[in-house]
Amino acid sequence: MNMVKPNFDKMNGLLPAVIQDYQTHEVLMLGFMNETAWEMTLSTGLATFYSRSRQELWVKGKTSGHRQIVREIRIDCDEDAVLLMVEQIGGAACHTGFRSCFYREVKDGSTRIIGIRVFDQKEVYRK
Amino acid sequence: MNMVKPNFDKMNGLLPAVIQDYQTHEVLMLGFMNETAWEMTLSTGLATFYSRSRQELWVKGKTSGHRQIVREIRIDCDEDAVLLMVEQIGGAACHTGFRSCFYREVKDGSTRIIGIRVFDQKEVYRK
Repeated sequence: MNMVKPNFDKMNGLLPAVIQDYQTHEVLMLGFMNETAWEMTLSTGLATFYSRSRQELWVKGKTSGHRQIVREIRIDCDEDAVLLMVEQIGGAACHTGFRSCFYREVKDGSTRIIGIRVFDQKEVYRK
Repeated sequence: MNMVKPNFDKMNGLLPAVIQDYQTHEVLMLGFMNETAWEMTLSTGLATFYSRSRQELWVKGKTSGHRQIVREIRIDCDEDAVLLMVEQIGGAACHTGFRSCFYREVKDGSTRIIGIRVFDQKEVYRK
């Protein structure tokens, strides 16, 4: 048994977490977890982050319903980053309605949309 | 044309970059870029990072030869994270010889190796 605890010290208490669709392997988003968010993710099985802009715990999908059910967790060689393979409820991780937050390609200094839009954000967040 | 420049301000000049194999879609590693590393990545087509531990620019694979040729770049909704689809020369991104730095699964508080080891690090770094 190799007990593991990620290193939260490198980024002032925050751990970067890459979120990947467990079936398609599409990278959906990058979030940050503080220690509480990490422990909640483990205990609830729902991806939970620390919102740097709102400075609060953030159960992904709490408002939209688009939760992320954790299917597998991996940790990197330095133990300062994690990778979560998730089942994305609602089919979209991004608040803009795209499947992935990485829905734009960068080329020659400009961007173009290559992602798939699953929902209209006005519909999901209007309540 | 939507000209784009990632936001380096959220993390004291560093931008998290998720590195994914452009063919298998395996997530290989997570690195950080400062503005110079980002611009070098764009101009050379080779994934270039800023090493937080060594505090210097780091052309991935410069020592091992295991460079990452950038095939596609994506940027996220908030423009504070990027995703690079790369061709991994040598077949392994991790200095430990595993294909991916995320070669261990976290389960019930402990880890187990699930990754594939491509090379012996003693052979690659002995020079």
